[in-house]
Amino acid sequence: MLNKNYLLPEDALNLILSQIKFRSLPFEEIPIEEAYRRILFEDIHAPEDLPGFLRSTVDGFAVRASDTFGAKEGSPAYLSLKGEIPMGEIPAFSLNPSEAASVATGGMLPEGADAVIMLEHVNIVSDDLIEVLRSIAPGENVIFKDEDVKKGDLVLSAGQILRAQDIGALAGLGITHLKVVKKPIIAIILTGDEIVPHFEKVLPGKVRDVNSFTLDGLAREFGATAIKMGIVKDDYREIKDTVMQAYEIADVVLITGGTSAGVKDMTAKIIEEMGSPGVLFHGVSIKPGKPLIGGVCNNKPVLGLPGHPVAVYVCFELFVRPILKHMTGNKSRGFKKMVNAKLSRSIHSQAGREDFIRVSLEKRDNELWATPLLSKSGLIMSLVRADGVLHIPADLIGIEEGKECLIEIID
Amino acid sequence: MLNKNYLLPEDALNLILSQIKFRSLPFEEIPIEEAYRRILFEDIHAPEDLPGFLRSTVDGFAVRASDTFGAKEGSPAYLSLKGEIPMGEIPAFSLNPSEAASVATGGMLPEGADAVIMLEHVNIVSDDLIEVLRSIAPGENVIFKDEDVKKGDLVLSAGQILRAQDIGALAGLGITHLKVVKKPIIAIILTGDEIVPHFEKVLPGKVRDVNSFTLDGLAREFGATAIKMGIVKDDYREIKDTVMQAYEIADVVLITGGTSAGVKDMTAKIIEEMGSPGVLFHGVSIKPGKPLIGGVCNNKPVLGLPGHPVAVYVCFELFVRPILKHMTGNKSRGFKKMVNAKLSRSIHSQAGREDFIRVSLEKRDNELWATPLLSKSGLIMSLVRADGVLHIPADLIGIEEGKECLIEIID
Repeated sequence: MLNKNYLLPEDALNLILSQIKFRSLPFEEIPIEEAYRRILFEDIHAPEDLPGFLRSTVDGFAVRASDTFGAKEGSPAYLSLKGEIPMGEIPAFSLNPSEAASVATGGMLPEGADAVIMLEHVNIVSDDLIEVLRSIAPGENVIFKDEDVKKGDLVLSAGQILRAQDIGALAGLGITHLKVVKKPIIAIILTGDEIVPHFEKVLPGKVRDVNSFTLDGLAREFGATAIKMGIVKDDYREIKDTVMQAYEIADVVLITGGTSAGVKDMTAKIIEEMGSPGVLFHGVSIKPGKPLIGGVCNNKPVLGLPGHPVAVYVCFELFVRPILKHMTGNKSRGFKKMVNAKLSRSIHSQAGREDFIRVSLEKRDNELWATPLLSKSGLIMSLVRADGVLHIPADLIGIEEGKECLIEIID
Repeated sequence: MLNKNYLLPEDALNLILSQIKFRSLPFEEIPIEEAYRRILFEDIHAPEDLPGFLRSTVDGFAVRASDTFGAKEGSPAYLSLKGEIPMGEIPAFSLNPSEAASVATGGMLPEGADAVIMLEHVNIVSDDLIEVLRSIAPGENVIFKDEDVKKGDLVLSAGQILRAQDIGALAGLGITHLKVVKKPIIAIILTGDEIVPHFEKVLPGKVRDVNSFTLDGLAREFGATAIKMGIVKDDYREIKDTVMQAYEIADVVLITGGTSAGVKDMTAKIIEEMGSPGVLFHGVSIKPGKPLIGGVCNNKPVLGLPGHPVAVYVCFELFVRPILKHMTGNKSRGFKKMVNAKLSRSIHSQAGREDFIRVSLEKRDNELWATPLLSKSGLIMSLVRADGVLHIPADLIGIEEGKECLIEIID
């Protein structure tokens, strides 16, 4: 079982992606209130200028800047106070030379005014006269009518994930509805004669369903919807029927399990029968996750995941998530939460294989240390105890104790 | 307006937290299917051993390890093959000395067996005889009945955010329901005569509501529920009535706006009237966000946020999020997505003040560069264009062009 027979994960993934249309999922139109974390389907251009009027950014007095030129303490400029501009209203007057008007932050400047002098640079002499103690330039302390956004500007682009502030900006522009990519639907099929539902008491020999819960959570994290197709016995007809149902309703079909000997081949056979090109690879050079079966049937990914909970997790991150990004046209740059930590114990890895080691993190004397959670496959607690994952690339044969490593946080 | 009159954000936050009970929110009991990203209310101990039986981790033959001692190629140990163990079932027989039984990955070992020899280290001589080509130790290639989790072990602890894999582990342990912290309810009150709903056409002088959308998204990101109390005119009675309503139904009350001169004092007065101790600080030494009013009324935070969308964002991250963590007892270590980037332009900062500068990120020649998005306050596009935030601590007076900085990603 030499690893050179298996593809590296990146090559295996590219093989899948090459068979699936980029942004193959359709759009749906929704109110912006529901668009948080959704993926934008089309570019959004500003339908109007923002703020749309000449606006003060401070509390003070709207002026013609030229009236203040040369003003200073001891030699102020005198301006007659024409009135106060109520917040949110169009000023009822315009400003002639040597006139000023009181304005609050966010207020609109009257016709004729081109700057705002701050309260603290003014002496109020009487109800209708102020002394300006400083000279200001045109445009000072104001936002021009198209300074935030100019009509027609690109505001957000297709493929972006909509963040809180992006929804705020859409609201500010008066955009009430928009097109987002439909949520991908992921069908989850569990196979295995030993698997029972989580609410059942287990007899020796049986184990409860772990994977459909982990996969459901990972799907939600991406913004996808998981549909649990149930637990299917290790039987060709039962698995095939369930895969066919799943294929009809879902955008991605995941078949997990197949731990017992004959089932791996059954899963591969069924994927072959579901459509073209069928199975693209059977096994990949990673640990954990080696038995992964990658398939695409008529533009729809159908994957056979190993049954081990840890392998399921790793395969989702390395394969299912990038496939979902591709299908939804999600352009996020994918910055990850990474920390530097020193390795508390040497670990060995096989050349030619990419290893993903779960680690717990601990602070000692203000230094972060990562402890590999080595465990036999099939154990679920190593994932629960893990704060992060250490990736060992294929060209390394291990990492020595005390060495500083980059750890990807899983929170 | 010297900054020494204002508290640093950390001190201001601690003042608020000191007035609110840690984990003041109650619990609710929900099915694990709904618990993804919720905050656990109580420690979870394992109700049983996992996997609960002696289980094979490979495809091979269950043996008594002592029967293989000394075996090697050329001098194999001969064992009689007693039968096959069906996946998911209790073996129908036990293993006597010099006997073996075929078992698949995940299968249960029969009584008497204490190890599994892998398929590739065996020659199958006939239907009832195998040659073992290697010696193995007791416990090799098996998981003991309590090796994943021991009954009574702490599996998850109160205050943890439940991740996909944590829900999987709960399912594996047969836990169907659990107590999580109630979702915090955040009431959002917008004040300002200039604010109109996002679906309205704006006349000059008016601006649309941006902040309730941004705050709603930020609330969801934390796992809180936002209730929009609507837009209230700059009128003491109207604001007071709305704050009183909000106080009744929400766990946190946010009053945003008050850009016009008199309203800041109105908000502070109302917070004072709502309960003890009332206003804790009025203004904090940060930019943006300086006009923040921090208050607690009878164990419930009531904050007056500035009206500028960027300041609202910063105040949520620096104040509201930590307050929510405190109220929910969320113990997450709060690792952030940080990247190193070189600053493309020098920026100046005031000593004694903490600055939060929005930056866009760009790769040039494989190096990441951060460009400060300097903008007049009130602009919303600088937040939309921002990929991250650069924090300049109070003891710096700026950062020079070309210097490497830590940027917190906002995605």
